[in-house]
Amino acid sequence: MGKTLNLGDAVNGSTESKTEFSLLRVDNTWRCKMGTCSNHGRGNVSAAKIFESVTERGSSWTVVSPIVFTYQVVETQCLLDPSNDTLLLGHIRDTRQLEELRNNPKPLRRFVVMDQVVYNLYAAKLRDYLEARHVVYSILPLPTTEENKSMELVMKILDEVHKFSLDRRGEPIIAIGGGVCLDIVGLAASLYRRRTPYIRVPTTLLSYVDASVGAKTGVNFASCKNKLGSYVPPVATFLDRSFFQTISRRQISNGLAEMLKMALMKHRELFELLETHGPFLLDTKFQSEGSGKYGGKHGKAAVTSSRMAIKSMLEELAPNLWEDELNRLVDFGHLISPELEMEVLPTLLHGEAVNIDMSYMVYVSRERGLLTEGDKLRIIGCMEGLELPVWHPDFTMEMVNRSFQNRLKHSGGLARMPLPISLGRADIFNDTTDEVLCKAFKKWCDELGTSSKTLI
Amino acid sequence: MGKTLNLGDAVNGSTESKTEFSLLRVDNTWRCKMGTCSNHGRGNVSAAKIFESVTERGSSWTVVSPIVFTYQVVETQCLLDPSNDTLLLGHIRDTRQLEELRNNPKPLRRFVVMDQVVYNLYAAKLRDYLEARHVVYSILPLPTTEENKSMELVMKILDEVHKFSLDRRGEPIIAIGGGVCLDIVGLAASLYRRRTPYIRVPTTLLSYVDASVGAKTGVNFASCKNKLGSYVPPVATFLDRSFFQTISRRQISNGLAEMLKMALMKHRELFELLETHGPFLLDTKFQSEGSGKYGGKHGKAAVTSSRMAIKSMLEELAPNLWEDELNRLVDFGHLISPELEMEVLPTLLHGEAVNIDMSYMVYVSRERGLLTEGDKLRIIGCMEGLELPVWHPDFTMEMVNRSFQNRLKHSGGLARMPLPISLGRADIFNDTTDEVLCKAFKKWCDELGTSSKTLI
Ligand SMILES: NC(=O)c1ccc[n+]([C@@H]2O[C@H](COP(=O)([O-])OP(=O)(O)OC[C@H]3O[C@@H](n4cnc5c(N)ncnc54)[C@H](O)[C@@H]3O)[C@@H](O)[C@H]2O)c1
Ligand SMILES: NC(=O)c1ccc[n+]([C@@H]2O[C@H](COP(=O)([O-])OP(=O)(O)OC[C@H]3O[C@@H](n4cnc5c(N)ncnc54)[C@H](O)[C@@H]3O)[C@@H](O)[C@H]2O)c1
Repeated sequence: MGKTLNLGDAVNGSTESKTEFSLLRVDNTWRCKMGTCSNHGRGNVSAAKIFESVTERGSSWTVVSPIVFTYQVVETQCLLDPSNDTLLLGHIRDTRQLEELRNNPKPLRRFVVMDQVVYNLYAAKLRDYLEARHVVYSILPLPTTEENKSMELVMKILDEVHKFSLDRRGEPIIAIGGGVCLDIVGLAASLYRRRTPYIRVPTTLLSYVDASVGAKTGVNFASCKNKLGSYVPPVATFLDRSFFQTISRRQISNGLAEMLKMALMKHRELFELLETHGPFLLDTKFQSEGSGKYGGKHGKAAVTSSRMAIKSMLEELAPNLWEDELNRLVDFGHLISPELEMEVLPTLLHGEAVNIDMSYMVYVSRERGLLTEGDKLRIIGCMEGLELPVWHPDFTMEMVNRSFQNRLKHSGGLARMPLPISLGRADIFNDTTDEVLCKAFKKWCDELGTSSKTLI
Repeated sequence: MGKTLNLGDAVNGSTESKTEFSLLRVDNTWRCKMGTCSNHGRGNVSAAKIFESVTERGSSWTVVSPIVFTYQVVETQCLLDPSNDTLLLGHIRDTRQLEELRNNPKPLRRFVVMDQVVYNLYAAKLRDYLEARHVVYSILPLPTTEENKSMELVMKILDEVHKFSLDRRGEPIIAIGGGVCLDIVGLAASLYRRRTPYIRVPTTLLSYVDASVGAKTGVNFASCKNKLGSYVPPVATFLDRSFFQTISRRQISNGLAEMLKMALMKHRELFELLETHGPFLLDTKFQSEGSGKYGGKHGKAAVTSSRMAIKSMLEELAPNLWEDELNRLVDFGHLISPELEMEVLPTLLHGEAVNIDMSYMVYVSRERGLLTEGDKLRIIGCMEGLELPVWHPDFTMEMVNRSFQNRLKHSGGLARMPLPISLGRADIFNDTTDEVLCKAFKKWCDELGTSSKTLI
């Protein structure tokens, strides 16, 4: 299985005597060579190893093979302007290959999957773009809603990809839409021919700051959120905030919740930005830059805050791409919210459910004495400023207990609860007692339960 | 996307100025740190990197993150004997954890998927085994035939896995069957919760020497072989030749084809073993060892030849687990055979189709002057000794051409044809002309087309 560890770990803790083999390539044949070989720049020693041991029942081999995943996250503007070739070529890192492609008269081919709503709004523009650049293309609009986020849609995409006769070497599948669309297309691409490159173009704030940044793909299964999926990153994600112009204020709020998560976990400056400029970001839908009518005291809040959120997310995801490390700050707000979100579907948006979970956890943190009353109030105040729900009637103590049991089961017996310990700092805790959970719950309901913010 | 390369390659060939960041962990928070950091054994520097660059359109980040895949291939005997705990604990490498589990009175839980035929033969024995060891288990028998090798069976497995309420941390899914069963279960496991450990127990010779050794999983789709799948290796493969007792002579032949492939590509000694002891291996179904009635001049042919095949397969697969390197000796016999196999389904077994492809390629090699007439005859003779078909009426020149076009398309414009250049040595060629392909085809048909071996 995949591990973000170094090679040594793989064969530790064993008493059998093992022979280590390096792998050397001569012409096109790989051969085992006893011991450690270093690569003398001739590119013929593999990073993989084989360890052999002999037991009474026969031989046994341990294969240790590192695979390097590489992907790009690229901020751009005017992605669908024909003068911008990011959408078609922005994933190519090799400058020579890029030059060749730019000079090649053969038309490019692209298969695009779009969220249905996004299709209605942007398909004409996309067609103009692709036609201006003489691309041979096919656009598949799909109703990629949370309720439809299933293997069936994945198969539907695969059917169409296959009909398009896609060449997986040079024709990345492009997904344009919110997190649901990106997750489904990512899974389809990771299955097709055991992986086909794909590109993510997030069109909601939530998918811009979250779904776009990591390697996860997925669909719901058996009423459980993202139960099936893979960890295959896109070749590239292209970020263009202009898509947010057409999403609702509520959807902006929704995305702000995931930004707030990163702020609370590790970025005080981002927290303060959201606290101060949150309402402005909601009003302007992150479109501030270049438009004369804003600016002034809000400065570059849109570009700065979104960039901070993405960078801090990348910091946490890059070292743990396959989520082998179970202590994860990015899990904040994601302990109880998956169950809440699925239970009340489609009442709450993803970020809203996450925010309700975070709001409760702030009370847990406070109850444990990790957070001051002042910081608690600032956080809840910031959430309200971002127009996010901070309480929900279906978030019950039974749900908390159930989610915790589930968590313990799937996290090696430990709760691994990320909790804020001050503004922009957090740690992981395993020793929160039932009593604390209950007391915090009561307090949370008492203080926020009647708030008008809870009625969506 | 995944690459078996070193980190540097990922960001080469670019003219933009890039800032390199290492990732350091302090408590539970990861932070970017400019430049290269070395790990001073405190385990707080990630192997991942982030490169940042600033363009006129914004910032852009390249994430480079290596994931180490580790798996075991273990020869054993009497796998279903209650005194052998390999099936339940053989995948655990950490001796402390192993000790803990052995002393833990809590029963283990296991979900097992079995090929229907294998179930009919071995389920009683497996139940006895699991009951003797007080395991809480569920066995799912499935008709895992090539015709059923589809996403539907994957979903069926997932339904049952979910009902079993599997804990993916400590309860690997066990697959027992031929290559079809192992491939389908592997795909289901790699999707469940974005990957769940699984164990392969091959029960055919073909899956023993081939499907069990690498990371590939897959199902057929749109009438194309293994069009959907993943590269997620099992935690362990347990090899027990005693399962071969119940497979047919033809199925042994079938597996010998994949062994012969490795022999022809890189292992002369293995070739000579197969040439000399092939008929004996067929007669005894690889059961020689420990049974008084064989032995003598055949010595340990069964154990030696199967071990050689597996080791040489591991050598080729370990450095190229995600198949990023397109020059692959293990592709020998797999250029035209997938189309042949699907077209005549279920007439030809996988190894038989592979052998027909290899037989033709031997003629191509001979036509190019890479192979002597003597070696060619020895190879064809060996194939016949292994009772493998060396020609097929549906393997036409049109099929050859079509497969080559397909190959060129999916292999970056090059044919990358593995061809034997002497017994046990091979190389990869891109310059085989249409004329050579045609001439070789004609000769192949002339010499082998009337052979009685072709009529299955
Ligand atoms: N893979 C990951 O790492 C990851 C991370 C976070 C969230 N997610 C997933 O993302 C999903 C949530 O994403 P989301 O909030 O983007 O939801 P979504 O994809 O459902 O999109 C929200 C709504 O906005 C519409 N829409 C999208 N872009 C638009 C635009 N530019 N203009 C107008 N309407 C537009 C969509 O049609 C949809 O109705 C969840 O399923 C969640 O599990 C994945
Ligand atoms: N993942 C990989 O790397 C890889 C490599 C090679 C082949 N494969 C795949 O493996 C498949 C072929 O595998 P296969 O040849 O094992 O075919 P198979 O799985 O269809 O099994 C062959 C037949 O033997 C029966 N059987 C299995 N074990 C038996 C036993 N012990 N006793 C009696 N009957 C038994 C099965 O029911 C089946 O009818 C193909 O689909 C091929 O694509 C995968």
